[in-house]
Formats: sequence, structure tokens, C-alpha cells
Amino acid sequence: MAEPAAALGIELRALVEMTDGSADQVLPYTAVGDAADLAAVRRLADGSVVTVEHEHVPAEVLDVMGARPGAAALRFAQDKITMRQELGAPMPTWFVARTSEEVESAIAALGGIAIAKTPRGGYDGRGVTLAHTVEDIEFFTEGEPILLEEKVEFDMEVAVLLARRPSGQVRCWPVTQTIQKDGVCYEAIAPAQISPELAERAREIATSIAHQTGVVGVLAVEMFVAGDELLINELAMRPHNSGHWTIDGAVTSQFEQHLRAVLDLPLGSTDMTADFAVMVNLLESALPDPRDAYPRALANDGAKIHIYGKEVRPRRKIGHVTVTGSDLESARERAHATIAQLEGRS
Amino acid sequence: MAEPAAALGIELRALVEMTDGSADQVLPYTAVGDAADLAAVRRLADGSVVTVEHEHVPAEVLDVMGARPGAAALRFAQDKITMRQELGAPMPTWFVARTSEEVESAIAALGGIAIAKTPRGGYDGRGVTLAHTVEDIEFFTEGEPILLEEKVEFDMEVAVLLARRPSGQVRCWPVTQTIQKDGVCYEAIAPAQISPELAERAREIATSIAHQTGVVGVLAVEMFVAGDELLINELAMRPHNSGHWTIDGAVTSQFEQHLRAVLDLPLGSTDMTADFAVMVNLLESALPDPRDAYPRALANDGAKIHIYGKEVRPRRKIGHVTVTGSDLESARERAHATIAQLEGRS
Repeated sequence: MAEPAAALGIELRALVEMTDGSADQVLPYTAVGDAADLAAVRRLADGSVVTVEHEHVPAEVLDVMGARPGAAALRFAQDKITMRQELGAPMPTWFVARTSEEVESAIAALGGIAIAKTPRGGYDGRGVTLAHTVEDIEFFTEGEPILLEEKVEFDMEVAVLLARRPSGQVRCWPVTQTIQKDGVCYEAIAPAQISPELAERAREIATSIAHQTGVVGVLAVEMFVAGDELLINELAMRPHNSGHWTIDGAVTSQFEQHLRAVLDLPLGSTDMTADFAVMVNLLESALPDPRDAYPRALANDGAKIHIYGKEVRPRRKIGHVTVTGSDLESARERAHATIAQLEGRS
Repeated sequence: MAEPAAALGIELRALVEMTDGSADQVLPYTAVGDAADLAAVRRLADGSVVTVEHEHVPAEVLDVMGARPGAAALRFAQDKITMRQELGAPMPTWFVARTSEEVESAIAALGGIAIAKTPRGGYDGRGVTLAHTVEDIEFFTEGEPILLEEKVEFDMEVAVLLARRPSGQVRCWPVTQTIQKDGVCYEAIAPAQISPELAERAREIATSIAHQTGVVGVLAVEMFVAGDELLINELAMRPHNSGHWTIDGAVTSQFEQHLRAVLDLPLGSTDMTADFAVMVNLLESALPDPRDAYPRALANDGAKIHIYGKEVRPRRKIGHVTVTGSDLESARERAHATIAQLEGRS
């Protein structure tokens, strides 16, 4: 978000976990503190518009700071059970279970196989597992609620990215196809290769969720496509991995749009600047530093490389590459070739 | 340059004139000092690749720091007389004069009217004036050299923007048309509305200048178009106002390309992301702060606003707006309408 803030002359301050993180590499003004520590948040942000870049912020902090999105909206992204219980939108069949018996009975009802999810705090495949029996669910604790969901035989996963202003103005980007690897988003393709009718329906469902939740800022609605059916998977209320392609492939990036939305400014055009955009995540690297690959990786014409300045750890997103163009397959090839070089695989 | 540096994970440090300037608003690491103060430059930049964002850096500092561009190249941009004496490229007729008599005789030889230019340090119309007699030239000092140049009856002004690596690799962006107002660049249109043959010749001339001077980094070659003729006006060896449209209208911006070039990394694609790009400078504002216009100005769909965080002063460039699109006239209209709002004129 530092980039569009700089362009628009908006002063951006960040509360960070540590001073040597990514934010400190690009922002002049940061302070160390926990997002759950109201005093720390107030010291940084009193008198400012407050927003979040992850969902794990207590309702009290959101309320006191008048954060955008607010607590009433964010609870739909914070708690997978709340989202399923209160949102009027098509979803896979789901159950909440609190005991081993309830888990087994839910799995049986779902056909002997279920996706088990911890209601809060999971991300990038953490807190999600395929379960044939309660023993498969390492993170289950007797007496604590857990979500058990139908394993959908989907054709494709997509995400609808949009932004909403306090006034209710909503603008959607073209629907994005996402491809997962081991529970982590690996690749995003815009626009998703689905029919215009299905894409329009996906945008309508996401827009309805935006208004139902009253979200302010960027909302990502992840969906399964199964034939003609669209089923909600998860929500995120912040700039989202599925929308990183908008930095290089849309007139207005999700990061600029998020700033506009939370500042209650007119939302920008969500048109694409090319026929196709392909984003591939950098999840690891065998190189001492992925930047060591620049002499070759930057020679991939049109490959826009983004490196986050994070230490390499298994399955951690440390960067991404976007390629735009008029031919989808050649854009995909170039993006994957660039990632292979940054990963030290070629 | 902060934006592409952040994306690529390149640490950018700036030597600045004052701590409350534009650079400090967007860069975590700056130091106050004069670019002519070698000790200050070394404290900031020893062990780093050094580049410049204006031409007024002494040769000694450039040499010691191994700056890119180096002193041997930069002198062509620092001194208008050197450029005319040593460069093999088509130029308007010019004379160097040191006395009032020489000035009058040069003006007579040029047909009774000349463009007078101070050899060093002029910019944005400062140090340039139309002269019928020596009295018209306020900045002339008896005994000091001054440049007197033919007043070209041109059809259009254009700029060729390119970048060159130490290895000699050069990539040009499409030729840009520039429109001046009171000696200051006001508008830039890419691609310039000239024939493909003329555009190709302009790029060839600029590429030849890049190799002749040995520039490393971005080079802007300003030219007059007069019929089929192309005549060199000025050079700049840094990201240049005529190339600001590349931020929003090209695959690789001039700022990213400059970083790639000075780091001797492969240059990126200079393809445009739209048929046309129009950039209009914000030179003044009647508003207390141009950002006060955001609630209306950001509603101009596709207008990319850039505000530099500089205090408003007469004729000072404090921002710009770029609009891209498939229709040149509507892009121009939208850009000018947005500027009018930021200026507080509408």
C-alpha cells in the first residue's frame, strides 16, 4: 500500500511486529506494537483513518478506532462459523461440531469425508485438513467448536475482488481464477476462464455480501465453481493474494482502491490494462537470496517481479511475479519460468 | 524511484536538501547533505551503486563514487555548450558569445532573433530567453560564455526516452510529444503523432547519442520536429518529466528502468499498456492543498493522480496526472479536467 499512498500524497503509518520487517523497508513511519494493544494503536493512529491488513484485530480496538472495515463487518472474515451462520449466500453443506461424536456424525452426514476447519485464525492451509475421522484433525480440541464442510468436487476456484465505500459504492475487478498447491494459493489468472453469465453471477453474489456485511475497503470472496453452481468458500476483508495481479494489470490496483475506499474517496476504474494477467507466487527459494536470480529473471520480458523482503521459510509467500499480455498461455509460461529462476530451480 | 525499488526489494537511500522534502515522505532512509559534498555522499552511499536525479553534481564526486551516469557522460547534460561542441547529431544553428559585441553579432547572424541560454544550471525555462538584443538577456554577464541559438520554427517538440546499461544494451520507449507553456513542460502525449519513419529516426538519433556519451541510466533527448527534420534541443540524464507517463502507461516505468540500468540488470519491456497515454503537469493550485480536490478529481475514471508532497510555488511542478486509453482526445480531456480540479479552477 506504500506505492499508491506515495503517489497520492497520503501519509501511511504502520503498526508492525518488528522493526526489521517488510513494512520498515518501504515506509518512513512505523511503530512496533500489537494490533490487540489499544494504547499502541492509539499512539500510532489517533486522528487518522485506521484500517487493517489482517483479520486478527479485536473488536474493541476496531470499535474505539472507528476502523474500516469495522468490527461488525470484520467478524464475517474473522470467524468461519459466523460467516456460514449469518450470511445469505450459496455455500457448501457445513456442520459445527464440538465433541468427537458430533465430528464423526458430521463426517458421516457429509459422505464419510469432510474438510475440517478451525473457525478462527487459520490461513494458507493452516487450520484446514481433509478428514475421514476425528483422528485426522490435529487441531481439534474436545469441547471447542470446529467446522466440518462438504468436500466440493469443483471445476475451478475463483475469487471476486471488490471494494466498497462507506456510502455503499462498490466496484468489482474481473473475476480471478485461483490455483492452489498444498492449500496455498499458487497462481491467479484474470479474467477467470468462465462464461460471462457465471462471472456476472459471481460478481452479484460478492456485491451482495459486501452490502450484507457492510465492509469498507477491499473484500475478496473465494468461491468454488462446480458446473453452473457457485459456492462460497472464504472471505477476506483486505487486499488479497488473488488480487496482486491488479498492481500490474488493472488501472487501479487493489491497494490504491483500498486506500480510496477507507478514505471514502471515489473508487477508481477496475478495467484491466491487458487481455490477461497471470500472477504466480514465490513460495520458497533454494538461492541464498531470490534477488541473486535478477540477472536472468529480469530478462523475461514483461515479467513484473515483486519481492517482499521477508526471510525465506517453508511455504511462506516471499514474493510474486505478474505477466500481462494478449496470449494467456505465453503469459503463464513466462510467469512460471521467472518463478523457477527466482526459486533457484532453473 | 521508491516504488520500483520497493517492488524489487532494492534498498534506496537518498541524499536530500532538507528532511521535510518529498523524498522523506516516501523513503525510510535519507540523509541531509549537499551532492557536492563528497564526505556526505560517502557517508550515505559507500558500498552502494550511486546515481543522480539532477545534473548538478561535481565531476569529482561522480568519479570517486563511480556514479552512473559517470562524469564523462553527464557533462553533456550539465553543459549546453559541451553538448553542442562535441556531439555528432543534428542541431539548430548555434553560437557561443562572451561579449556584448559577440552577442549582437550572433543575433544578427541568426536573423535578428535568437534563443539565449545559460550554459549550465538552467531548467524549466529559467536561464532561457528570447533575445532581439543583448539587453533582453538578463542573465548575461560580460566575459562569461552564453549560448545563442536559432529560433526554430518547429511543428512539434518531442522527447525520446531510453535507458542504457553499462554493457551497451539500450531500450527506447515510444517517442513522446511534449507541449510547453511559458518554457515549462505542460503536457506529454505518447506515442507522438508523427510518422513511423520519423519516430524511428528519432529513436536512432537518441540511441546514437546514448552510445556517444556512454550514458548509464535513463536518457531523455528533447528534439524539435520541423517538417522532416529532427533537431536536438536538450539532453537530460535521469528520469525525465517527458517520461512520467511510463509509470501508468508502460510495462516498465522510467524509474524502474533507471534502477535496472544503473544496477546493470536486464532492461524491461518498453511496450505501452494502452494505445495512448497523456500526462499533464500540475504547476500550481489555488486550493490550500491540491488533495482537497480528491473527492471530485478521483471520480475522473482512469485518471492516475501523482502528488509530490511539495509546497506550492509559482511554476513549480507539484504533481501530474496520467490518463491512458484507446481514444487520444478523450484521454486528453479527462487529464485536463482532472488537473483543472486539482488546480482549483473548476
